[in-house]
Amino acid sequence: MIQWFKYLAILAVATLSGCASTGGEGNLNGPLTIARQGSFFVNGRDVKSDYLSLLPAYASGGTIAIEQMYVHYQEPVAAKRPPVVFIHGCCLTGKTWESTPDGRMGWDELFVRRGFPTYVVDQVSRGRSAANPSSIVQAKAGKAAPETLPQIFSAAREGAWTIFRFGPEYPKLFPGMQFPVEAQVEFWKQMVPDWLNALPTPNPTVPALSQLAQKLKGTVLISHSQSGIYPFQTAILDRRGIVGIVAIEPGACPSTASDMTPYVGLPILVLWGDYVELSPRWAPRLKSCGEFVVAANRAGAKAQMVMLNDVGMPGASHMLMQDKHSLQIGNWLADWIDRHVTR
Amino acid sequence: MIQWFKYLAILAVATLSGCASTGGEGNLNGPLTIARQGSFFVNGRDVKSDYLSLLPAYASGGTIAIEQMYVHYQEPVAAKRPPVVFIHGCCLTGKTWESTPDGRMGWDELFVRRGFPTYVVDQVSRGRSAANPSSIVQAKAGKAAPETLPQIFSAAREGAWTIFRFGPEYPKLFPGMQFPVEAQVEFWKQMVPDWLNALPTPNPTVPALSQLAQKLKGTVLISHSQSGIYPFQTAILDRRGIVGIVAIEPGACPSTASDMTPYVGLPILVLWGDYVELSPRWAPRLKSCGEFVVAANRAGAKAQMVMLNDVGMPGASHMLMQDKHSLQIGNWLADWIDRHVTR
Repeated sequence: MIQWFKYLAILAVATLSGCASTGGEGNLNGPLTIARQGSFFVNGRDVKSDYLSLLPAYASGGTIAIEQMYVHYQEPVAAKRPPVVFIHGCCLTGKTWESTPDGRMGWDELFVRRGFPTYVVDQVSRGRSAANPSSIVQAKAGKAAPETLPQIFSAAREGAWTIFRFGPEYPKLFPGMQFPVEAQVEFWKQMVPDWLNALPTPNPTVPALSQLAQKLKGTVLISHSQSGIYPFQTAILDRRGIVGIVAIEPGACPSTASDMTPYVGLPILVLWGDYVELSPRWAPRLKSCGEFVVAANRAGAKAQMVMLNDVGMPGASHMLMQDKHSLQIGNWLADWIDRHVTR
Repeated sequence: MIQWFKYLAILAVATLSGCASTGGEGNLNGPLTIARQGSFFVNGRDVKSDYLSLLPAYASGGTIAIEQMYVHYQEPVAAKRPPVVFIHGCCLTGKTWESTPDGRMGWDELFVRRGFPTYVVDQVSRGRSAANPSSIVQAKAGKAAPETLPQIFSAAREGAWTIFRFGPEYPKLFPGMQFPVEAQVEFWKQMVPDWLNALPTPNPTVPALSQLAQKLKGTVLISHSQSGIYPFQTAILDRRGIVGIVAIEPGACPSTASDMTPYVGLPILVLWGDYVELSPRWAPRLKSCGEFVVAANRAGAKAQMVMLNDVGMPGASHMLMQDKHSLQIGNWLADWIDRHVTR
């Protein structure tokens, strides 16, 4: 009897996956053919430091590169769609967009299969984008006060549980919530120390995104959470190369009092999952993003705010690109880009 | 005239690339079809800490995962060859094996094109494999002495120049050296802070490699530099899942006095580039690895040490997987595995 139920459940998921792909042309199953792939860095600058090493095997001082941003990409054959750039959020890396904790296809591959050249970054000072260790080495040597240490932090899972809106409090679940919590152990392994607060403002990820957008000659910047404000800041810095902005559950939207000129004519989507109103952290952000969308459109932007609940995909967590219905959501987003963005 | 010379140079490189692929079956040009790709973590453990954040927005304490190892993989269609695992060296990440600084194909793709399921890792506490920030947060809070800070370091380029054997001293070049120094700016961006000395012994990368090897049910562990000793330590820990070891310019080989039992019957290649005898850092390592190969074979291993100069590929730097003749070297290595390793 249990086996039979399991079979029905698998059938249901398979049917859902099938449905999810009907909107686009991509083949979500079978081998994947790519025209090109690789990785590179954008931006970065050289700094000299006397405190790079306390070990005899490595010189104490010299020159290192910092503020470069790691980018990994795949291009589909005969891509007809604009490139997309995926920018992860707090305490995470580009891994966010790769295989889900329960081992399903990530959006990095989904969007390639849907015909988009796909670029996944590690924010500056995170993952494969080098941080600057100098102040730690200097403090360990007793040559600088502990207060000068970088303001780094990790998000403990007990607190992250509510930030990611898996439930109202750790380890309770929201009813119908679609994050694969049975594989949560694999998700927590994705989290890394966050150097955001040790970096200058605007975050060096912003000029790096600008350089990437100009290199790509027309891209949709897709942010998540902490990185939500970066594509907007990138457009303020330089509009060139940006043909659309998708802010998935942004930690912040631009102030309604800020200059809206950079967004004139620009397709903008602010996308939200479920349970947002239930979260003291997220509800105010939802409200202020709604106000931004109104102000941006008044100034001539083509902005839209969408709750996934309203388009038939309830139960989405903050980590919606990894939810059980992540391919359905990703396909909906690919369709949205198809409809709204012209290169 | 200059244009004509440029054309000849391009032709020469194209011819070389063509030659390089004659040894194997792989098509090095055109679109690439892969059966599967993705990423996951192996190993890892939970730790509780009271010092994860000094910021009001994130809880000061709780549980995080550390010592997990990030793995990215691609499987070719109808793979007939054993999986290979690429393990980077000091101060670097898995980026080592991806696109070269001058934008050519990395070994990660070359080996997929040659029919090997290819796994690229970030060592524990490096890149997308999370480090533990607790001792930094604790010291910044004034709750621990600066001496307890992690022993992290970065390799300054002036010193790294000789370690990577680009030349006898910064910024001089060895004659005929094949690293693309004209793109060195892009190479320096690959370097990240190294947490090796802040980790327990054996490095947690070792049990993670063991878990990966067992998962893959038969793999060739391919190390570089700092990670040179890890595959040997992995075999000592547990021989299961290891069908070959390739140590590219290892920082250390096992002592001749150590137990050779784990290597009985195992194909082992220790591979070296050029100018090794000219380096006070590398010459002794070459010598002791030569002694290890003799001792291992006496005990029943199938070990071999190869100087690339002796097989017609002079000019290789320490970063030989990124040298101008990197595809030629990679193809030679793929052929070596074909000839020596049976799954």
